[in-house]
Amino acid sequence: MHRRFVLARRPDGLPQVDDFRLESVPLPTLPAGGLLVRNRFVSVDPGTRGRLGDRETYAQPLALGEVIQAATVGTVEASEHPKFKAGDWVAAAFGWQEWAASDGRGIRVVPDNGLAPSTAIGVLGIPGLTAYFGMLDIGAPQPGETVLVTSAAGAVGSAAGQIAMIRGARVVGVAGGPAKCAWLTGTLGFAGAIDHRAVSDMTAAVAAACPEGVDVLFDNVGNAMIDSVLPLMKRGGRIVVCGQMADYNRPAEQAPGLRNTRAFIGQRLTMRGLVAFDHVRQYPQAWADLTGWIRAGRLKYREDVVEGFEHLPQAFIGLFTGDNFGRRLVHLR
Amino acid sequence: MHRRFVLARRPDGLPQVDDFRLESVPLPTLPAGGLLVRNRFVSVDPGTRGRLGDRETYAQPLALGEVIQAATVGTVEASEHPKFKAGDWVAAAFGWQEWAASDGRGIRVVPDNGLAPSTAIGVLGIPGLTAYFGMLDIGAPQPGETVLVTSAAGAVGSAAGQIAMIRGARVVGVAGGPAKCAWLTGTLGFAGAIDHRAVSDMTAAVAAACPEGVDVLFDNVGNAMIDSVLPLMKRGGRIVVCGQMADYNRPAEQAPGLRNTRAFIGQRLTMRGLVAFDHVRQYPQAWADLTGWIRAGRLKYREDVVEGFEHLPQAFIGLFTGDNFGRRLVHLR
Repeated sequence: MHRRFVLARRPDGLPQVDDFRLESVPLPTLPAGGLLVRNRFVSVDPGTRGRLGDRETYAQPLALGEVIQAATVGTVEASEHPKFKAGDWVAAAFGWQEWAASDGRGIRVVPDNGLAPSTAIGVLGIPGLTAYFGMLDIGAPQPGETVLVTSAAGAVGSAAGQIAMIRGARVVGVAGGPAKCAWLTGTLGFAGAIDHRAVSDMTAAVAAACPEGVDVLFDNVGNAMIDSVLPLMKRGGRIVVCGQMADYNRPAEQAPGLRNTRAFIGQRLTMRGLVAFDHVRQYPQAWADLTGWIRAGRLKYREDVVEGFEHLPQAFIGLFTGDNFGRRLVHLR
Repeated sequence: MHRRFVLARRPDGLPQVDDFRLESVPLPTLPAGGLLVRNRFVSVDPGTRGRLGDRETYAQPLALGEVIQAATVGTVEASEHPKFKAGDWVAAAFGWQEWAASDGRGIRVVPDNGLAPSTAIGVLGIPGLTAYFGMLDIGAPQPGETVLVTSAAGAVGSAAGQIAMIRGARVVGVAGGPAKCAWLTGTLGFAGAIDHRAVSDMTAAVAAACPEGVDVLFDNVGNAMIDSVLPLMKRGGRIVVCGQMADYNRPAEQAPGLRNTRAFIGQRLTMRGLVAFDHVRQYPQAWADLTGWIRAGRLKYREDVVEGFEHLPQAFIGLFTGDNFGRRLVHLR
């Protein structure tokens, strides 16, 4: 037998532990020509929230009773597949379950790059790739420009900010609490950090931290945050809509509105939404760059590992209150 | 003596006639090496509203007592300037006044292209150029795509829609009233037209007129309109923020908000603001294309000419209630 979490009911607002049901089901059997994987790390991602509702976002909604989908890293326990052998670490999307059987599609052997296998679904997984393509393709920071990153101590934001620094930009981050802010300016070398929990007027706080204005806003928070920064955007500024953490838990009609949109004409702004999957053909280049920067000490990352499969729902819910500090993964013992 | 209108007070909301003051001042004298122009057509533009307030938009606010700025077409009455001779038609930005003196900078002789000189500040002026660059550079419609244009019977919208048709797109327009809608589908050949005055649910109306969704939204109206269309935007869609007619007369904090922004990630949307002046080096190509399309009968335009200098304020105010039908100019008798 092994365990899995399925969608028990669709969350109303902030997800609750009872929205997920823990099931014990028979271990999968090895499919002919396929492989059997034991998950070791399972991710929790804010973007998953969109799939728990009944409206289509950039992915189909999950069905009730379906295993919660998520990125995973695990070990091959048995294989008849020529590309995989027992003992290999593999990155996949097996979701919130302890074991999985597969025909091998959509699975990737974690390369031996000297980094922990968990990084395959962190700084080298969708979070790192999202930061990479969002910052380089849409943000496109130039040397000396000012880049503001929100949820900057998170997996995506911290990578995005450092990539902007590698491109020569001056980077300021928004994060929750003094520890995260100290990490941004101390360990990562951001030019500034804004603790959103200590700020009542975000526009004023950003103006103080970015006295020349903002060339690139890389946003993971949502409408209220973007609206606060719009009046400070510089001529030709770019807004990367990467995540909308603060808006995922409410229907669109209850979301705060973007009102300061006259800046779009006045400052010739561009705002663009991003999904890393669209860039799958450029993943090899991105992996090469990200790995190189990590090895050179120019790209640092944090993993926030929660121990124990049974804590998956709470680990996920905690994302929305900012409990995590870095890429949050659940380690299956 | 000649007449001019100056800013008497900053409008609160919809401009009033009393916000403008009619002055009689001495005729300007011919500057050494310069020229003297008698304005024949003066434009009224919604975008001027932004300059009547005290906040900077994409242009500096006008000072109280300053002549209202606007595009003009006039005749050279006297010239010591080698580029201009008496009798030439010239396009300039002399504003709401009957005569002007100039050193020649920023003035352009209206070419003899077989079109009425007034077109130099209409379909061949900033409205036509705005449509051209906004549609081709930002909207970039592809054959078979669906393009929705708002304020579609206006100077910018009607040109933008026809340019999209020339590029092979299916074009639907939003306009106010049955006469404008009939002109869009009848004379211009739009695939559909939505009378916004007859519609209570804009999203439903657009969905009915664009059953496959919208690839390009070319918007002249503002936040409420964009928000209505966001849920219908197709994957990779582009939103051209060309004008915000409905929002110019209120402070940003009172504007309707864009709430349906989750479509930015879900559908990988791009929204960009536009000012034609940024493309000044490409004007010659744009003029050549626009003129060619007009001569070929592929680009039609309407001018809505108000007779009499003294009617300038009312002609301007009427733009915000949709009084005009086509490019509105005031003809100075």
